[in-house]
Amino acid sequence: MAVYTEVADEELEAFIASYAIGALTSCKGIAEGVENSNYLIHTEAGRYILTLYEKRVAPQDLPYFLALMEHLAARGINCPLPVRDREGRTLRQLAGKPSALITFLDGISVRRASIEQCASLSQALARLHVAGESFPMRRTNNLSLTGWAPLFNAIADRANGIIPGLAGEIGRELTELAQHWPAGLAEGVIHADLFPDNVLFLGAQVSGLIDFYFACNDMLAYDIAICLNAWCFEADASFNITKARALLQAYESVRPLSDAELDALPTLARGAALRFLLTRSYDWLNTDGEALVKRKDPNEYLRKLRFHRRVKSYRDYGLGGH
Amino acid sequence: MAVYTEVADEELEAFIASYAIGALTSCKGIAEGVENSNYLIHTEAGRYILTLYEKRVAPQDLPYFLALMEHLAARGINCPLPVRDREGRTLRQLAGKPSALITFLDGISVRRASIEQCASLSQALARLHVAGESFPMRRTNNLSLTGWAPLFNAIADRANGIIPGLAGEIGRELTELAQHWPAGLAEGVIHADLFPDNVLFLGAQVSGLIDFYFACNDMLAYDIAICLNAWCFEADASFNITKARALLQAYESVRPLSDAELDALPTLARGAALRFLLTRSYDWLNTDGEALVKRKDPNEYLRKLRFHRRVKSYRDYGLGGH
Repeated sequence: MAVYTEVADEELEAFIASYAIGALTSCKGIAEGVENSNYLIHTEAGRYILTLYEKRVAPQDLPYFLALMEHLAARGINCPLPVRDREGRTLRQLAGKPSALITFLDGISVRRASIEQCASLSQALARLHVAGESFPMRRTNNLSLTGWAPLFNAIADRANGIIPGLAGEIGRELTELAQHWPAGLAEGVIHADLFPDNVLFLGAQVSGLIDFYFACNDMLAYDIAICLNAWCFEADASFNITKARALLQAYESVRPLSDAELDALPTLARGAALRFLLTRSYDWLNTDGEALVKRKDPNEYLRKLRFHRRVKSYRDYGLGGH
Repeated sequence: MAVYTEVADEELEAFIASYAIGALTSCKGIAEGVENSNYLIHTEAGRYILTLYEKRVAPQDLPYFLALMEHLAARGINCPLPVRDREGRTLRQLAGKPSALITFLDGISVRRASIEQCASLSQALARLHVAGESFPMRRTNNLSLTGWAPLFNAIADRANGIIPGLAGEIGRELTELAQHWPAGLAEGVIHADLFPDNVLFLGAQVSGLIDFYFACNDMLAYDIAICLNAWCFEADASFNITKARALLQAYESVRPLSDAELDALPTLARGAALRFLLTRSYDWLNTDGEALVKRKDPNEYLRKLRFHRRVKSYRDYGLGGH
């Protein structure tokens, strides 16, 4: 839930007038994205999302995110297109915050995806990976292996207060992942946060991928691992192997995986689980329970991490051998 | 800021299918109205607001509010029209809450209204009062004179913790208003909460009146008094007599005020100020500072109350004699 920054009437009017999109006819703060303030805007020309970037997004990263959306949209990926103002700028300032106006995408976020939706999602992911190959900018994934140790250090002395034994378990996991973390896999642009919140569907088909504010360059298969965690576990924490199989097969129908990528999947899935376990634990300890942002349960990702630790090979995700 | 209740995917889909409005293409929780959960919905047929009524709205009052909006919309008032489902119902249940789907209105809420906007607002108010004459249902205003004493009792022992001396000042005001509260003025349907948040503009003209969940039957001039407080003070607490004159003259261009209504205006304005001073004080004491709902400053309405106490006659609001 968001909308932290309110925009004064005159300032909003002048801002909209600086784009060739006609007069403003409606502006509603929307409860979407915990990171930024978002407004759903209607003008004479159509519908837009106005985003004011709050403190969790580094301003120096915004040109990467905005250029990436332009690059992907130009290649047919259903993602928001940053709108250029009359001077050709996509990155602006509004109410003292870095801001951008992006196109609105139809579609509904689902809480419980169907098998068909998991397949559609992962085809869209594979297309994003292919379209991203020619994107020239680079952004390091600061929430991958090298970023986890500092995050762990920031929570280590209080982690056992969230879940008894958590500090030790994360510590051991970090050591093991550092030893086994894959290298040499295909790299490119990854979304890095493709949770159900960030995918829009019309019926069973993906109509939009949104919220590119964790996008970065990393191993493409790591993005698949994030999706296995975000899309293939049920609310009761059980792993839905049918969804995982559908997700992996659909991905491969667009971009086949190498044997090395397949072999690395269980390790990448452990890493992806650890990444969200760490950030959720950090947020848990640093967010007031009464605050605007709803805290997400770290335990969900501890259970996923433990699941992947028991996995012997990618075949346990339902995929037959190559 | 709202959206308290989340609706499950299948339940929302089934709910939308029960209306003849085509398939759902978008659904965004909007940060609007502190009382209810609101979603901005797009379907193949158009745009709608889906409201789930939370605990502050009494379910037994909902038929009044929904029938009133239908009545007013049918008479050309720009207010939301409750949409009837395939069985002809406007009041429904969704996610265990009473719910309604209403039409979406274009327009922007302004924070600082212009003189022209104040005039347009009050013409819209007068038209609402006229259109409401033929509305057959009744709802008592439980936030008028008889409702204030119980509200005061609920905060009296802690009021001085908000503003020193507040309890005594409210107590004296209650006594005086009980002695001088007008009777015999024209009555009818009043909006009772026509703050800038609840009025949409396109340019200088009102495009919509929304949020009828305090509407009730009371003296029509009391609604004007609420608007004088809500629209004619500047952010620095100064009274803008030019706006007040424009507001009163524009109202009279649609529905002339009787001498008795004019004479009662200062008393009604004190009462209207006291009403919001009381509810804001109550909310101040009963809302956690960190909670979802932003607390509104009671002091703003204490200053407005004191202003009206110094007013000698309606002429001090900028209006010439009749």
